[in-house]
Amino acid sequence: MKQRLQQLINWMQEKEMDVCFVSSKENVFYFSGFRSEPHERLLGLLVFQQSEPILICPAMEQNDVKNAGWEYEIIGYQDTENPWDIIQQKIHQRLPKQPTWGIEKVHLNVERYEEIMKRFPNVQFVSAEEKLRELRMIKDDQELAAIRKAAALADFAIETGVNAIYEGATELEIIATIEYELKKKGVTEMSFSTMVLTGANAASPHGTPGLTKIKKGDLVLFDLGVVYEGYCSDITRTVAFGDISEEQKAIYETVRKAEETAVVATKPGVTASHLDQIARQIIHEAGYGDFFPHRLGHGLGISVHEYPSITSTNELTIQKGMVFTIEPGIYVPNVAGVRIEDDVYVTEDGVEVLTKYPKELKIIE
Amino acid sequence: MKQRLQQLINWMQEKEMDVCFVSSKENVFYFSGFRSEPHERLLGLLVFQQSEPILICPAMEQNDVKNAGWEYEIIGYQDTENPWDIIQQKIHQRLPKQPTWGIEKVHLNVERYEEIMKRFPNVQFVSAEEKLRELRMIKDDQELAAIRKAAALADFAIETGVNAIYEGATELEIIATIEYELKKKGVTEMSFSTMVLTGANAASPHGTPGLTKIKKGDLVLFDLGVVYEGYCSDITRTVAFGDISEEQKAIYETVRKAEETAVVATKPGVTASHLDQIARQIIHEAGYGDFFPHRLGHGLGISVHEYPSITSTNELTIQKGMVFTIEPGIYVPNVAGVRIEDDVYVTEDGVEVLTKYPKELKIIE
Repeated sequence: MKQRLQQLINWMQEKEMDVCFVSSKENVFYFSGFRSEPHERLLGLLVFQQSEPILICPAMEQNDVKNAGWEYEIIGYQDTENPWDIIQQKIHQRLPKQPTWGIEKVHLNVERYEEIMKRFPNVQFVSAEEKLRELRMIKDDQELAAIRKAAALADFAIETGVNAIYEGATELEIIATIEYELKKKGVTEMSFSTMVLTGANAASPHGTPGLTKIKKGDLVLFDLGVVYEGYCSDITRTVAFGDISEEQKAIYETVRKAEETAVVATKPGVTASHLDQIARQIIHEAGYGDFFPHRLGHGLGISVHEYPSITSTNELTIQKGMVFTIEPGIYVPNVAGVRIEDDVYVTEDGVEVLTKYPKELKIIE
Repeated sequence: MKQRLQQLINWMQEKEMDVCFVSSKENVFYFSGFRSEPHERLLGLLVFQQSEPILICPAMEQNDVKNAGWEYEIIGYQDTENPWDIIQQKIHQRLPKQPTWGIEKVHLNVERYEEIMKRFPNVQFVSAEEKLRELRMIKDDQELAAIRKAAALADFAIETGVNAIYEGATELEIIATIEYELKKKGVTEMSFSTMVLTGANAASPHGTPGLTKIKKGDLVLFDLGVVYEGYCSDITRTVAFGDISEEQKAIYETVRKAEETAVVATKPGVTASHLDQIARQIIHEAGYGDFFPHRLGHGLGISVHEYPSITSTNELTIQKGMVFTIEPGIYVPNVAGVRIEDDVYVTEDGVEVLTKYPKELKIIE
């Protein structure tokens, strides 16, 4: 955590920024180790160029902050107090009259923005978003270790789900079985709402699981992720229940080839767009170019969607330490919906694939 | 939906507001029936005083918007398009050069706020938060029907959880059983992360469920909610596993009396603070005043926490149509944690209690 804070402070020095107000729960966790859901209450971190940082949280969470390892000052406010009064006082003690503030422009809401402007007239705002994204994009060893475990639990979840398939089982029943087994292992949180989609539902990239029953000849698509120590995994596998058609098989093998080719091509120095294009080209050549309507992948970490975004237009260079998904898909209405998704960590010269559940077409009899 | 939109438009006319930009997914759902998780993508509703509203969403969700019953214009944008370009064009076609915009100041982020200012220089902003809260606070029959069903499912969940208790069961195992049975009934979403806390964990108002095992003499606290057609329920019950001490029983009965007294006192015309004070007074008189560290309750609907807030300082008058929780609790470290929570709908002259699981102390042998 100290190193992360120092990186932020170094950047603040470059930008001549007096204070950076870190306000999203994800970034507060990143810098403090303290993870919480503040709802409408104010949670934030004031990082100063010249003095120690301060964490602001509801009073009842102060102990949790300490237990999370935070060694600096904490402002714990009661529900009957206005935390901005305390913040104003602290800032006035420490900073010149017109400090330059870094803020999270994508997170901070207009109400709080106006509160800052009211209390610090003529304040200069600088967006800290890009720097914060950049810091979070490169994972350190501690983060990688957490994502590895989250990915191993995701593999287990897929295995559990595949084993739970039987004729007439509903999508929700399979999800229930998966989450039941995960909870028994101590998992308290999924990265997002678990998806199991079958038949026509799987052929929509935006299906919602329900009481649809699995029947012979269906493709069953699993998309899920597990949170481990605050870090997310995200995996998709598609399996066949009973015999499927030649076209369904061809679609599956096209997606698999696109996915595996993109995984192999991932290494420091290539661009995000290059990876998207490699996968898209394979799908296009197989005649399914119109049926791959989403980007190749997305960064993964504290958030299940973070940077880098692996799109056809993102010229960002892939670097060691990035973690992202590779997840091409083909969705042909009334024919097949197939997506295969892995989480990869970029190494010196390639990738470590964190999700390891097999990708050969599995036909469940 | 039409009536809801009309109420907003009437208010816009009063305030001489040209356009209101509804940007939170909850409020978009409230006015359109379209429910989605846009993540970082733009989702919004432009409501005009003089012309029909427009819904903005990712292109791939356009059909879902129509299926949700939206009868007006939809702007569906591709990931490669900037939706603000389209919005700017639409606004310029319809409105004077310097329109007055209503915005959700608590939801809209600084980045989007600056985008509006850049594209519409000298625009005047008005906060729509209070009006939107006010509209959502009074539930119509359709909303009440959904919350009633969500509450009935919450009762079922408690019953399932209570029946699942046995010596040595972990908190997460009980949660797994509850959610498994709910999924089998077609429930796809909980209002929040289900809590089952036992022994010392239950005595912290902020405990997190884990692998702690239930043992004889423990109080077991359940706090959970189910989402039904977009509406949340929220229930808490505390039961005893085996014999508990006299002090634990006294704490239970104090909480029950505080809860039931506040429920009976709820009717149009009283203030929120009055209800909080009634419950707090009972707990204070029993000698546990220092161990009830939170408000009495919160509004409930599309969000699990919405208005009204039932606090000791909120002088808001309770009105027919409001739905909120009543949930006093006492948490004495190493002695007992008890909370009892119901969802109530305010009627002409009292309440309909939506959650119906019994509140007499249940001792599981």
